[in-house]
Amino acid sequence: MGIAAASDLKPRGDDAFGSAAASLRSLINADLELVDEEIGICLRSQVDLIPSLAGHLVNAGGKRLRPMLTLAAARLCGYGGADHVKLAAAVELIHGATLLHDDVVDASVLRRGAATANIIWGNKESVLVGDFIFSRAFELMVAARNLKVLQILAVASGVIAQGEVLQLATQKNLDATYDLYLAVVQSKTAALFAAAAQAGAAIAGAPLGVEEALKTYGGNLGVAYQLIDDALDYVGFDARLGKRTGDDFREGKMTLPVVYALGRADEEDARFWRRTMGEGVLRPDDFARARAILDRTGAIEDTIACARKFADRAIADLARVPENAYARALADLAATSAARTA
Amino acid sequence: MGIAAASDLKPRGDDAFGSAAASLRSLINADLELVDEEIGICLRSQVDLIPSLAGHLVNAGGKRLRPMLTLAAARLCGYGGADHVKLAAAVELIHGATLLHDDVVDASVLRRGAATANIIWGNKESVLVGDFIFSRAFELMVAARNLKVLQILAVASGVIAQGEVLQLATQKNLDATYDLYLAVVQSKTAALFAAAAQAGAAIAGAPLGVEEALKTYGGNLGVAYQLIDDALDYVGFDARLGKRTGDDFREGKMTLPVVYALGRADEEDARFWRRTMGEGVLRPDDFARARAILDRTGAIEDTIACARKFADRAIADLARVPENAYARALADLAATSAARTA
Repeated sequence: MGIAAASDLKPRGDDAFGSAAASLRSLINADLELVDEEIGICLRSQVDLIPSLAGHLVNAGGKRLRPMLTLAAARLCGYGGADHVKLAAAVELIHGATLLHDDVVDASVLRRGAATANIIWGNKESVLVGDFIFSRAFELMVAARNLKVLQILAVASGVIAQGEVLQLATQKNLDATYDLYLAVVQSKTAALFAAAAQAGAAIAGAPLGVEEALKTYGGNLGVAYQLIDDALDYVGFDARLGKRTGDDFREGKMTLPVVYALGRADEEDARFWRRTMGEGVLRPDDFARARAILDRTGAIEDTIACARKFADRAIADLARVPENAYARALADLAATSAARTA
Repeated sequence: MGIAAASDLKPRGDDAFGSAAASLRSLINADLELVDEEIGICLRSQVDLIPSLAGHLVNAGGKRLRPMLTLAAARLCGYGGADHVKLAAAVELIHGATLLHDDVVDASVLRRGAATANIIWGNKESVLVGDFIFSRAFELMVAARNLKVLQILAVASGVIAQGEVLQLATQKNLDATYDLYLAVVQSKTAALFAAAAQAGAAIAGAPLGVEEALKTYGGNLGVAYQLIDDALDYVGFDARLGKRTGDDFREGKMTLPVVYALGRADEEDARFWRRTMGEGVLRPDDFARARAILDRTGAIEDTIACARKFADRAIADLARVPENAYARALADLAATSAARTA
């Protein structure tokens, strides 16, 4: 068959993104602990299933990237109040509710190395507890008593849901273009990154220019983050990623690596993608072959280059915000995001 | 087998509840048309699936009871603004999102006489479009720019979701008591009725006592409404109800008729309920037999009597609100709610 192994993105000794995230975290650690506390309170319920299922999700070792953006943005803008904690918790809860529903929709079995809630408790349970978490997120936002921030986060929620529907409608669609893919990523992932950072600036009462800069920073970082996620789904490692790589391939999700590869496909490759991604007819060695094609056509390399472009934009956005330790940590996070290996 | 036909609740020539709802509607018809317009705008999207699926749900001929409560409560309290329309639309959208997810969870095939969205478009699609509708509801509420109302509706959403989870956890549980059943109904149904009416009073800036009275009115009406729904699931007619009767029985949903029947069951009846509702082992004539038992034990009759009790409470609540045409129409609605046959 002549299938070459794709050049895997090996976790390196110097995990630059992990270090950058740790540096950022050290600046806002006290706030982040309050966020976890707030989330814990929110997920309490006399209905046992709720804390069990929701706790499994929340404690599964997520990176807490989105709430960190809210906290850091607020502090960057000199915020001295306490409501940024509520907003950060709300942002993480919106993310969590989305993950629960995503895993149902994708019939995922693993997330961050652990069995998904839909596998342990069931699809129905995941749908309803997801709704509960989503409602709790809104209660938290309302408790921050800031209409502008409420609007930012409510609109973002709608955009995310729209992105999820668009992604579903795009599945198995081999005519998906770069623009269509980007529209999916902008809405399903980047919108929450953008809203998370913007909400922090808004609660701090930052000037509009700064708020806008942090919003676009978040959005660009979110695109870079998702692009690397999509690359890692082909060339990442199970243990580090905490999920089976190849999920996107098996589900026929049209991510950028495949969009690039399709644009460069000869007749044989095109036939392969049509059968696998288009028609969902999969043979045991198809994933290895997909990886080999992505490698040969430079699709993974170019996906990472595209992520780097968005990361650079995110860094440039920070030129319009006050220069301080928070801004520097956010810049480092963006600078290392395209080199992420886990 | 000696199965007697249960005494069906035949649709009567004088559909008193339908008339009461029509009278209420005539008072707020202009507002209600604006609500439909607002909902139509909310469900627009470039992602084709969203308006198709959501439109199917929204245009399926729901009674619009909940938004009518918001509109009527606002007008009853002398409200002269326009934001009650946004809130009423948000209330109906929350209800719609819940229905979409309910139908996925219950694997329902029919709603109001038409195929459900999950059957036409699929479960994944229904989950994600439900999330979209839910987000849009929050956007609308935020647009009304009233933090108190936002809190009322956000809390209600959480309570509803919690009630849905509780109902799921209670399924097939033959030890379910009246109190547990009532807790499910209070949260999954009555909470939105209560919040709908309360939100109308709150946006009008009504005195706290009036707001509270309308909230409890809504809650009591909601319980009465759900109790009759549960009775109709055993003794209602397909065509009028627009859904297959017997759904609750087949799904093992512990509603009040069964809770009553279980409390009065001899050994043979208890064995029957254990096999059918508890273990889900169903034979072709089981539903007819269930109806016969409910009839013989007076379980349906007593469920309706219980609904009447809550309807009476709802009427009593209105003693604490201004006396006007809106209050009278709301009283009529409650007075006829326990005699509802469709």
